[in-house]
Amino acid sequence: MSDVMTNSENKTENQMWGGRFAGGPASVMEDINASIDVDRRLWREDITGSKAHADMLASTGIISDEDNAAIQKGLDAIAGEIERGEFPFSKALEDIHMNIEARLKELVGEPAGRLHTARSRNDQVATDFRLWVRQSCADAAASLRALCRALASKAAANADAVMPGFTHLQTAQPVTFGHHLLAYVEMFARDAARFDDAAQRMNECPLGAAALAGTSFPIDREQTAKALGFDRPCANSLDAVSSRDFAMEAMAAASITATHLSRLGEELVIWTSAQFDFVKLSDAFSTGSSIMPQKRNPDAAELVRAKAGRIIASMNALMIVMKGLPMAYAKDMQEDKAATFECFEALGLGLVAMTGMIEDLSVNRGAMKSAAGDGFSTATDLADWLVRKLNMPFRDAHHVTGAIVAQADNTGVMLHELSLADMQQVEPRITDDVFSVLSVDASIASRTSFGGTAPENVKREAEKWLKHLGS
Amino acid sequence: MSDVMTNSENKTENQMWGGRFAGGPASVMEDINASIDVDRRLWREDITGSKAHADMLASTGIISDEDNAAIQKGLDAIAGEIERGEFPFSKALEDIHMNIEARLKELVGEPAGRLHTARSRNDQVATDFRLWVRQSCADAAASLRALCRALASKAAANADAVMPGFTHLQTAQPVTFGHHLLAYVEMFARDAARFDDAAQRMNECPLGAAALAGTSFPIDREQTAKALGFDRPCANSLDAVSSRDFAMEAMAAASITATHLSRLGEELVIWTSAQFDFVKLSDAFSTGSSIMPQKRNPDAAELVRAKAGRIIASMNALMIVMKGLPMAYAKDMQEDKAATFECFEALGLGLVAMTGMIEDLSVNRGAMKSAAGDGFSTATDLADWLVRKLNMPFRDAHHVTGAIVAQADNTGVMLHELSLADMQQVEPRITDDVFSVLSVDASIASRTSFGGTAPENVKREAEKWLKHLGS
Amino acid sequence: MSDVMTNSENKTENQMWGGRFAGGPASVMEDINASIDVDRRLWREDITGSKAHADMLASTGIISDEDNAAIQKGLDAIAGEIERGEFPFSKALEDIHMNIEARLKELVGEPAGRLHTARSRNDQVATDFRLWVRQSCADAAASLRALCRALASKAAANADAVMPGFTHLQTAQPVTFGHHLLAYVEMFARDAARFDDAAQRMNECPLGAAALAGTSFPIDREQTAKALGFDRPCANSLDAVSSRDFAMEAMAAASITATHLSRLGEELVIWTSAQFDFVKLSDAFSTGSSIMPQKRNPDAAELVRAKAGRIIASMNALMIVMKGLPMAYAKDMQEDKAATFECFEALGLGLVAMTGMIEDLSVNRGAMKSAAGDGFSTATDLADWLVRKLNMPFRDAHHVTGAIVAQADNTGVMLHELSLADMQQVEPRITDDVFSVLSVDASIASRTSFGGTAPENVKREAEKWLKHLGS
Amino acid sequence: MSDVMTNSENKTENQMWGGRFAGGPASVMEDINASIDVDRRLWREDITGSKAHADMLASTGIISDEDNAAIQKGLDAIAGEIERGEFPFSKALEDIHMNIEARLKELVGEPAGRLHTARSRNDQVATDFRLWVRQSCADAAASLRALCRALASKAAANADAVMPGFTHLQTAQPVTFGHHLLAYVEMFARDAARFDDAAQRMNECPLGAAALAGTSFPIDREQTAKALGFDRPCANSLDAVSSRDFAMEAMAAASITATHLSRLGEELVIWTSAQFDFVKLSDAFSTGSSIMPQKRNPDAAELVRAKAGRIIASMNALMIVMKGLPMAYAKDMQEDKAATFECFEALGLGLVAMTGMIEDLSVNRGAMKSAAGDGFSTATDLADWLVRKLNMPFRDAHHVTGAIVAQADNTGVMLHELSLADMQQVEPRITDDVFSVLSVDASIASRTSFGGTAPENVKREAEKWLKHLGS
Repeated sequence: MSDVMTNSENKTENQMWGGRFAGGPASVMEDINASIDVDRRLWREDITGSKAHADMLASTGIISDEDNAAIQKGLDAIAGEIERGEFPFSKALEDIHMNIEARLKELVGEPAGRLHTARSRNDQVATDFRLWVRQSCADAAASLRALCRALASKAAANADAVMPGFTHLQTAQPVTFGHHLLAYVEMFARDAARFDDAAQRMNECPLGAAALAGTSFPIDREQTAKALGFDRPCANSLDAVSSRDFAMEAMAAASITATHLSRLGEELVIWTSAQFDFVKLSDAFSTGSSIMPQKRNPDAAELVRAKAGRIIASMNALMIVMKGLPMAYAKDMQEDKAATFECFEALGLGLVAMTGMIEDLSVNRGAMKSAAGDGFSTATDLADWLVRKLNMPFRDAHHVTGAIVAQADNTGVMLHELSLADMQQVEPRITDDVFSVLSVDASIASRTSFGGTAPENVKREAEKWLKHLGS
Repeated sequence: MSDVMTNSENKTENQMWGGRFAGGPASVMEDINASIDVDRRLWREDITGSKAHADMLASTGIISDEDNAAIQKGLDAIAGEIERGEFPFSKALEDIHMNIEARLKELVGEPAGRLHTARSRNDQVATDFRLWVRQSCADAAASLRALCRALASKAAANADAVMPGFTHLQTAQPVTFGHHLLAYVEMFARDAARFDDAAQRMNECPLGAAALAGTSFPIDREQTAKALGFDRPCANSLDAVSSRDFAMEAMAAASITATHLSRLGEELVIWTSAQFDFVKLSDAFSTGSSIMPQKRNPDAAELVRAKAGRIIASMNALMIVMKGLPMAYAKDMQEDKAATFECFEALGLGLVAMTGMIEDLSVNRGAMKSAAGDGFSTATDLADWLVRKLNMPFRDAHHVTGAIVAQADNTGVMLHELSLADMQQVEPRITDDVFSVLSVDASIASRTSFGGTAPENVKREAEKWLKHLGS
Repeated sequence: MSDVMTNSENKTENQMWGGRFAGGPASVMEDINASIDVDRRLWREDITGSKAHADMLASTGIISDEDNAAIQKGLDAIAGEIERGEFPFSKALEDIHMNIEARLKELVGEPAGRLHTARSRNDQVATDFRLWVRQSCADAAASLRALCRALASKAAANADAVMPGFTHLQTAQPVTFGHHLLAYVEMFARDAARFDDAAQRMNECPLGAAALAGTSFPIDREQTAKALGFDRPCANSLDAVSSRDFAMEAMAAASITATHLSRLGEELVIWTSAQFDFVKLSDAFSTGSSIMPQKRNPDAAELVRAKAGRIIASMNALMIVMKGLPMAYAKDMQEDKAATFECFEALGLGLVAMTGMIEDLSVNRGAMKSAAGDGFSTATDLADWLVRKLNMPFRDAHHVTGAIVAQADNTGVMLHELSLADMQQVEPRITDDVFSVLSVDASIASRTSFGGTAPENVKREAEKWLKHLGS
Repeated sequence: MSDVMTNSENKTENQMWGGRFAGGPASVMEDINASIDVDRRLWREDITGSKAHADMLASTGIISDEDNAAIQKGLDAIAGEIERGEFPFSKALEDIHMNIEARLKELVGEPAGRLHTARSRNDQVATDFRLWVRQSCADAAASLRALCRALASKAAANADAVMPGFTHLQTAQPVTFGHHLLAYVEMFARDAARFDDAAQRMNECPLGAAALAGTSFPIDREQTAKALGFDRPCANSLDAVSSRDFAMEAMAAASITATHLSRLGEELVIWTSAQFDFVKLSDAFSTGSSIMPQKRNPDAAELVRAKAGRIIASMNALMIVMKGLPMAYAKDMQEDKAATFECFEALGLGLVAMTGMIEDLSVNRGAMKSAAGDGFSTATDLADWLVRKLNMPFRDAHHVTGAIVAQADNTGVMLHELSLADMQQVEPRITDDVFSVLSVDASIASRTSFGGTAPENVKREAEKWLKHLGS
């Protein structure tokens, strides 16, 4: 009795895969082997790559111009069919490459058989996939810069909006909301630069590596590389078909971006809680409750935060697949595409949703400013005053400040509400001038060091970014 | 200028997500928020859960029997529509639950509005998903046991087929192929037990936890728990809707299984290489080459090996999503399903494909046996003989053996081909009896300790497993 | 010119590993190969395992009683030396096993050479490591139950302390703080059960599997298994030395626990923010600021939250190592220990720190209750009243409630502050009885369904747990 | 009864952490909070950073030149103490920064208290850590280039050594061993470039960001940035202390490198098996067996392969830690260092060990060449000949080749051993010229396309790399 029969006998209780695999080994193999459901996304890249290859075969005289013309026409027709949703995808033909190749044969006959000269499935797939990842890096970088524009724009409008700067989610020192948002601009701009670097580094063309060893046909790899927008052909044919570090690097950039998105997502969730009430998301990015019409759940912020899981894990998946794989091609590498596609799908959603949220964000300046004054957030300013004006060593100033804060805490007042006399009890040399640093507005205004939160700094930085980002 | 406009303006170069999100914030939000493409797999569980809930509402008098009858009939009709592929899934209705609820309203009118009494989306989703994961654990355990049967059956037939036992992929000591396969039976049987444990531990019903706090309706949670095959209702309503450890545990079992599958997959790839040539996969599980018709690529083994990446990463994804999430429900948790579904999809494919490969496997006994004798693989047997017969301390016996092996190596013969005189030059007390342990057959026959590779052990173990597994 | 020379020449700028590896290949090899810095933690298990093995060798007559007595005495002496910190660990001897073996030879001479009879490094290491992991599982389960006691005890004392139940960090419905804590008791109790299962499943003894094939000596594996507290010997010698699923399962249990710890850690961080102010950590588990003496940073909660990273990743590490590894032993498997040790080190710290934090936690009932009334948190109670008393379909009741909440929102009052007349404008059939469900106290009191948040439920559950946990 | 008491009571059975944490909460907190065991590696960076900061404070007049001189002298003295192993590290002082600060106070008194002016622990730690990661990137890039030199050198010496090119570990087409090694040079060179990019991108100085908001002191951040070798100061103070993407990017580069190392490690393990016997590792990088002196286990290759687990997981750990963390500093971020340190420790070992293995590698040209001819590895050459000489469409040539290979397979000869008559039976137009492409030497010689495996290509590429790498 075969095991597969057992599986099909158990069909009723085996709803998940019993049904799919009941057809015996052949059916299992088709299911595990076929990739058309995943790699059909590469149709455009596959056609573009084939057109460039055929042009090169013709211009080097490997195929005739007539054959090339037929191939070009056939491939264009197929592109049209796919765009119009009329293309008959077939699982039996396994992948997007065979689907297109078989259709080309139907459309143009014998010349289709010449397209595969001096090419193999290995370099063809590597080229298609690289084109896709390169475009995804460009898209991600563009979306990141759009997000930076949204953040910088909101920062410019809130360059002087005071909020608590937190450490450990405890109020530490006042900052401005604009300054807080610009910190994310720095992060996302570096993320965009990572995608640029990745796209640049991968910009070598695998086409012409053939199965793994190169070819004896007199091909012109410079021509195909140029036609497909690559800087040059890959210099080693084994590397060209065996390497997937270009996808890993792109996913690493996506993963780092995802940690940044998740941090901002978390802040939005916290800030929109009733207890913080710092910002309000627009209706478009919240979900409500029919029973509590005032309610506004930050669903989009939570989903963006969660996408980090999928994105980081997709990179992990590819690394696990590639770990310990001997050269050159192994079928394991077919798993590269599902992981990469889902990584960029999640990233794209997250970036665009975050951009929308930031653009639409309403800022509750009152709540922020009120919170900024809590917790003796200007204690550091007092200590710095003691150092600057009384020339105390920093550690001593720290100690004196602690005593004054304790007094304010016991009295139940804020620092700037203490009397000079009260402060002088702790340190007699303190003068009236001290009050110039004890308010939150004074505090932020004083932070004029390069990179500090002083509103003038923030305004200048926001404008610098807006100009740089070209919006 | 809105960022979304920017994206839509860039449409031509932004093939990946430009098109999808061009519709403005609302469209992005729909894309990131809607889960119907993923959670439609829960349709059966959703209907089963609703039917149990409605029955309970009627038997506790919370709704009328007439309303219940209408609801039951409507839900059955919907199940029929979905099974027949006639159900109009709508993305605007976001998820499977709203799709079914809306359709029920169309079909039965007002009673549909009463189905949601004493229930919320949170406990409904938690119940549906738990039902799905429980079934998947049962399916995985069944498939694992089917794989164990295939392995034990092949082991029984190869209980005495000698092969090299490797360490560091270097020949170490002879074992039998049956023994090697039974090691995997042990691993996969533990894997099945992990799924059993997970299914058992999660077998508490969230239904009736409502949004998070329980309900004031006089519901009977024992009834719904029993109707859905649960051992009991969850004892804490917050836990019921907030926890996803049941999915993580199932995915951990899947991940551990995947490491075992990947190890066996790797061995199949190595064993089918021309250099090893230990086994041959059937046509059904290999792919050929039109140009090299004799070629037989172990694609299925490679794909099974690769699935470890996806499976392990899917668990990683869910853990990252859940890390640091405050209670009770957060939208982040919507990501649980895609990760879990793809984990079990990959696992199911891997298990069934591996079962088929093992069933169809041809064993090249000659190549295995020949390799088993290489590398002085019976050196340990010689050392053990010295300890047993000459009462040498183990470490001394080791030393003497090394000297004899070196002599054989220099002479270019195998251990049992050395003359007694040669051995006696190293250790004069060695007698003719030593030859009884120097052949690979003698070696494996002597390993009769419990769990050892002696063919009689292997045969007995294989039969024990076959009986235990009921094939 | 050798590359290693290059490295040593670059020594000044190569501070990280230049120094370590400057000694040439031999030194690199020693560094990458030696594991004594990691596996010295196994010293106790190694000695225990060797003592059991020697006893068995003697009782089966494989070694003499005199030799066994010498070995036992020598091993006890070594244990004493290590405990007193007097043992001379040597990196040249690579690992803990060789360190102990070499020392035994020094101490007792020839009998030391007989200890290794019918044993190999492979089964010895597998046994030692399994003993360590089994103990760690027991420790983790014990610590989890201690944490459960702390939580249940705090829950019993706060069974009726009202707090907001959150979804999306937005107030949804009132619950009690005790109920919230008991949700974690459910989670952590399942975590403890996972460690119990893991310890149970791994409780088979690898000793006697020898290198990989078993042995020809007449050993008694039942005896050693029993002596070391195992249920039985491993049934397959290859599996015994090749498998590490026992460690992965233990780490999976640790990882799931870590997600729970991180969630509670996150809640503590949020709850201790000035904006929430729900709880106060004790001095012992906070850090202060010399400059802001009133400040109390939830460092311990943050560190517990962060440990999830290390714990989850350590499991990921081992799975990646094991993925695709052919049988039997490969040196890769030496990496199992560092990952497992750091996993349990982090888990242990996290569990004990969390237990301390919970025990010492001060609850700010006033702030919690005040927050619980915000956001029209009893809207669901109103809707349920409409269903129950006016027999409205649930979806209609939802709609009416929405209208009433909108009115309260516009008027700026809480739900129970609306007049009956105001409500009757929306739905004339509403009576005075409605006020019995609109306060947060009434709301929680009504949630008496099994698992609901009614204080009587919570009290009963807390006491059930305390009794069950035996504190 | 406190839980900690419980733990200490259970001490005997709780060997792992019972002992450590028995001292009550304070002791747990010290254990979880203290980082000195980990961050003492930053001592050099901490002193360098402090010296630059003090110089700047003096040159801007914030402290006096006398104080600066005292500080400089004190810090130099501490550096000496640490280098000589005389520094008294204290766990009570928690971290390396407090250890050094406290010691400075002992050594120089009051001026030590002024060092911390206009600086906080947050920017100090961020600066130290960034300096360490930047150096590690430089070290990794240097080690990668050393590995590339070793590979290119070995490739130059084996530019014409024929070996089988594998797909699916099945012989596909002949390549040269030099070509195979140069594929890794391409990969490792890209890896080095990733470290360069990471080092470049992170090269902004956090010092002067203070706690999070900047400072009111008239500091000169350009000066400190320059003194520490940074291109510029960080432009946003919150970003400066909150971001860890620089470490993640470095770890991503390490992880990608690790997948490449693990692939080459796997190949070495396979190649050194008795069945392949393609290469031999030197004694320095193998371990032997006292009982089988001829044995040579590829331990170093396996360990390098395994390090991928730890390296990839360490990145995963940091990403999980950072995911969802609100700004600015959270204690969670203390976990960044252990993950990063262990990542680079493992990477460094792996790179240097691999370099040594490659340098010492002996190549078995005979075995490789013999294997290269198996499996009709020149079938593609035959097909290409048919296309080129007979103008067949590629797909038809494929078909004809298949028929000829089948005939050779049935006859039991290699392709070039078939008679012309036999081939002409399949395709009459075949001429004698076909034999010019059927040998493995002819095959590789013909692959002259750019990037192909023709020995002249390989030689040129190897020399290009050696020149480029400057060895």
